[in-house]
Amino acid sequence: MNDLEGLARLIRYYSLVSTTEAGSGHPTSSLSAADLMAGLLFGGSFRFDLDDPRYPNNDRLIFSKGHASPLFYAIWAAAGKVSEKVLLTLRKSNSPLEGHPTPAFRYTEAATGSLGQGLSIGLGMAMNATYIDKLPYRTYVLLGDSEMAEGSVWEAMEIAAYYKLGNLVGILDVNRLGQRGETMYGHDLSIYKRKVAAFGWEPIVIDGHYLPQIVTAFQQAAQISDRPYMIIAKTLKGKGVSFIEDKNGWHGKALKKDELARALQELGPVDKELRGRIEPPPDAKPARAKSTLAAPVSYTPDKRVATRRAYGTSLSRLAPQYPDLVVLDGEVSNSTYAEIFKSGHPERFFEMFIAEQNMVGAALGLSIRGKAPFVSTFAAFLTRAADQVRMSQYSNANIKFCGSHAGVSIGEDGSSQMGLEDIALFRAILGSVVLYPSDAVSTDKLVEEMAKHQGICYLRTTRMETPILYRNDEAFWIGGSKTLKSSSKDKAAVVAAGITLHETLKAYEALRKEGILIRVIDLYSVKPVDVATLRQAAEDTGFIITVEDHYAEGGIADAVRTALSKDPVPVHSLAVRAMPKSGKPDELLEYEGISATAIVEAVKHRMS
Amino acid sequence: MNDLEGLARLIRYYSLVSTTEAGSGHPTSSLSAADLMAGLLFGGSFRFDLDDPRYPNNDRLIFSKGHASPLFYAIWAAAGKVSEKVLLTLRKSNSPLEGHPTPAFRYTEAATGSLGQGLSIGLGMAMNATYIDKLPYRTYVLLGDSEMAEGSVWEAMEIAAYYKLGNLVGILDVNRLGQRGETMYGHDLSIYKRKVAAFGWEPIVIDGHYLPQIVTAFQQAAQISDRPYMIIAKTLKGKGVSFIEDKNGWHGKALKKDELARALQELGPVDKELRGRIEPPPDAKPARAKSTLAAPVSYTPDKRVATRRAYGTSLSRLAPQYPDLVVLDGEVSNSTYAEIFKSGHPERFFEMFIAEQNMVGAALGLSIRGKAPFVSTFAAFLTRAADQVRMSQYSNANIKFCGSHAGVSIGEDGSSQMGLEDIALFRAILGSVVLYPSDAVSTDKLVEEMAKHQGICYLRTTRMETPILYRNDEAFWIGGSKTLKSSSKDKAAVVAAGITLHETLKAYEALRKEGILIRVIDLYSVKPVDVATLRQAAEDTGFIITVEDHYAEGGIADAVRTALSKDPVPVHSLAVRAMPKSGKPDELLEYEGISATAIVEAVKHRMS
Repeated sequence: MNDLEGLARLIRYYSLVSTTEAGSGHPTSSLSAADLMAGLLFGGSFRFDLDDPRYPNNDRLIFSKGHASPLFYAIWAAAGKVSEKVLLTLRKSNSPLEGHPTPAFRYTEAATGSLGQGLSIGLGMAMNATYIDKLPYRTYVLLGDSEMAEGSVWEAMEIAAYYKLGNLVGILDVNRLGQRGETMYGHDLSIYKRKVAAFGWEPIVIDGHYLPQIVTAFQQAAQISDRPYMIIAKTLKGKGVSFIEDKNGWHGKALKKDELARALQELGPVDKELRGRIEPPPDAKPARAKSTLAAPVSYTPDKRVATRRAYGTSLSRLAPQYPDLVVLDGEVSNSTYAEIFKSGHPERFFEMFIAEQNMVGAALGLSIRGKAPFVSTFAAFLTRAADQVRMSQYSNANIKFCGSHAGVSIGEDGSSQMGLEDIALFRAILGSVVLYPSDAVSTDKLVEEMAKHQGICYLRTTRMETPILYRNDEAFWIGGSKTLKSSSKDKAAVVAAGITLHETLKAYEALRKEGILIRVIDLYSVKPVDVATLRQAAEDTGFIITVEDHYAEGGIADAVRTALSKDPVPVHSLAVRAMPKSGKPDELLEYEGISATAIVEAVKHRMS
Repeated sequence: MNDLEGLARLIRYYSLVSTTEAGSGHPTSSLSAADLMAGLLFGGSFRFDLDDPRYPNNDRLIFSKGHASPLFYAIWAAAGKVSEKVLLTLRKSNSPLEGHPTPAFRYTEAATGSLGQGLSIGLGMAMNATYIDKLPYRTYVLLGDSEMAEGSVWEAMEIAAYYKLGNLVGILDVNRLGQRGETMYGHDLSIYKRKVAAFGWEPIVIDGHYLPQIVTAFQQAAQISDRPYMIIAKTLKGKGVSFIEDKNGWHGKALKKDELARALQELGPVDKELRGRIEPPPDAKPARAKSTLAAPVSYTPDKRVATRRAYGTSLSRLAPQYPDLVVLDGEVSNSTYAEIFKSGHPERFFEMFIAEQNMVGAALGLSIRGKAPFVSTFAAFLTRAADQVRMSQYSNANIKFCGSHAGVSIGEDGSSQMGLEDIALFRAILGSVVLYPSDAVSTDKLVEEMAKHQGICYLRTTRMETPILYRNDEAFWIGGSKTLKSSSKDKAAVVAAGITLHETLKAYEALRKEGILIRVIDLYSVKPVDVATLRQAAEDTGFIITVEDHYAEGGIADAVRTALSKDPVPVHSLAVRAMPKSGKPDELLEYEGISATAIVEAVKHRMS
């Protein structure tokens, strides 16, 4: 049996000295949860192989309140895996111990620090345990009371209850104080209890500084199997150091050297040799289906197929070959066509309802547990999860996003449903891949490229049916492009993708009849972009026209200009610039100046 | 007394014929709420001047379930303000009746269609009534059951209760069916009731098709003054037409001509001459403070002031002159320095807690009611509300955003807290203004420009203290720039803003010592951008270097390349390209290659 009191004291000691050494950080937010974490890790419930943090059957621990990182690092120090010397590198350049937890530290499951996201990530891991890997590990998420104001938390709450995740345990550290004062409910724990219960969880209210009660709560959590469990703990911010305890004005402040000395005096003697023992996890292997070769792509030329439908068809085709491929959709699977996958592989499909933030957070949790989640909704509604997408890049996520209903070409539904900033959103993610196919064959091939690729990918699909442009044996790759029309007499190169490529081909025919030739480039890979082909086109024609069903900023024009930044030529951008509205797709392409007519005009204007 | 049964039948008739004529749209989602809306508008509770939809003391009605737009248009037709002829233009190009409500239709309060946002907008309007205009109008929000999965709804729920908005009434149309099947809870209304009550609202469960009960519920709502009221109505999707009623597979589908004939047969005789009378609003004027001239800007040269602090100082300075200016902050006012405004003007400051989506939705509601809301949080956390920002552009919003803690120069807190994609986010908003000042004087002046400007503006501020660069009488404007260093011998033009401008000035001095001159441009207005100055710099120097504490995509480099697209010169971009991490600000600027050293190297490389 571990000396929990001693370990909690040691953890407090580590939290205090590391932040004072750093000169910044969050000691008070660490101290409020020190007993909770000592009780969890060393009280007998937590099962973890310290030498193999990625072991599939380890229990998972996510610090949703990522600013309590000093506590996070301190508990692994108390487990014997971080030396005091390393703790004292907290927040320094090149230290694995960053200001908020990141994968630079090997015990971090997921980067946190944008509040309200950890429960969704934990939900993804718990879904993985229950529905995919079929493993008995449990997932614990430490939450702050301030972050309970984030709607994303309540999305995770409702979906966790819906999926009956009895292996998910929330630990709510109600220390009463937010960054600039009291939280909405202060120490009224009954409100949290009522909300948590109303959302279908099993709540228990405890004294977060009384170790026997903490240990019992975790034991009870293990008894509940049909619904998630929330430990609502009354705590004091800065607990254990009288002059910062439960005091406003001490958020995110490290103690000065003299204050630290006083604090350590109060803390009393710390046994720095003490190490907590963590229970090992049961030996168990993830359930895993065998991989069998996918059927080849087979589209009939001259048939019109919407790329959004090709997305679903491709997922379904690839399912046998990629057993880790799972699909999440935000209650629009009959529009994104994720339903095609669902019908053949319901066990790997998750309905995430209209709660995009949680959907992306859960996908991150699945991704960290080795799955390759494909996440779909309307492109416009992926903006709802922009912060979750942003944060996922700091967890080395392997998530494949698909945004359907891109651009004004969706037509009658109007502006609210049109994805017009999605390329800008996904281009501004470090190392991201942004793909925008124009026909069913290229869509299918690019979905397979996404399945093979490790990292964050985005695929943009189109609502309306479009002609097949490519043969089934055509190859597509990340960073590639296709030059569909080319001659030595090209007056300009028109760079397009998706719906505007079809407009460009119409413009090509119209111009050809007048004896004017243009180069036509299908820029299906918007990021990374095919610099060589674009530079050649610039050199050959001296003038580039980009056409995109997207706002003028952050999309294809910007990508092309960046590619040409060393030896630039004029780039004329046709893009969505007038207030979008309802109408027929063709009318709207015309209205925005991204139709065949507009392309013809731009080419002729260049020649005049 | 209105003939409510007859009006409800007429509204159903309009909803059906308009969608069939359009060939698309959502008749079934309209029919489920037809009785609720007939009861609201014509049952005696709703008070509205039909000839003056913008009248300040009108009751407000927001269709959060914007896809029920046929119903929305139908109720105003039943009130005599839309002809059947106009109804039949639904979803056609140039019709005010778009697929989802927009301000193109004069009775639309706010554009909706991205689910889960309407309650926040209503909350802003209700806050305005209670706390600013001090008017007795009530705000009604029609919600769908599917959208209750959105976390943003629960943010609005908790904040409405916190602010005791007894003038806010939600109407929850529980028709059981979402887009692709049943919702999470189907017709179990008790779950909604439990959740709504737990979040501090007064819930009432009714039969949403029984008009006397509906009318009574609205009367009761008017009796509750200390908390918001939610009418949870059991309804049937497609109610009134047997072959679509409560049937899956009928979401977002218009009836075919023959189906319409059968439906109208079932509906029975409709009195197309019938018009509902709406109660007029009480005559009342908004409370309004007098405007008095603001004090002039006065910063002492040679003092270091963080631009984030200058933001708060400027708001406080401008408060007397701009009585419509209100400030919202996401529980970080001591970091964004919105607290400086709060301390002097608490009656115009709203703590919105860590719930950014609702904060932006509420700001939109305030903006529509004539206020000029300034909204602040960390730049990184504005991404949390990207969809609300996106949607606000379709409501002609007048919102001024401030994102603090931009870039890696925040230092030790690490990647999760660094705004590195915020410029990309705000540039991709139609007609937006993006400002990025580098010192306190320019910040103050630009905050005033934002206060004067009607529209969506974004101001990016820096965490660390920076030197004052400008005199207090220097002028700054939207679309402007400052050329700080210029000569006829400039070897390159370096374009920077914010923290990197200071690095550029250091680089200038270092290069000057070696006899190398560069042009230095402060691009404080990133959108719109000062094309003339940039083109002149391109012509004079033939080479541009951009330096930005932002990811390489969607930021200053893209803005500059766009400005030069007609007569381009090479643009070399220094931006954040390595995985961001914790460290000292200077170390991180160095690590990312956006420091003075990197600028010097880039200039020399250009010359070699």
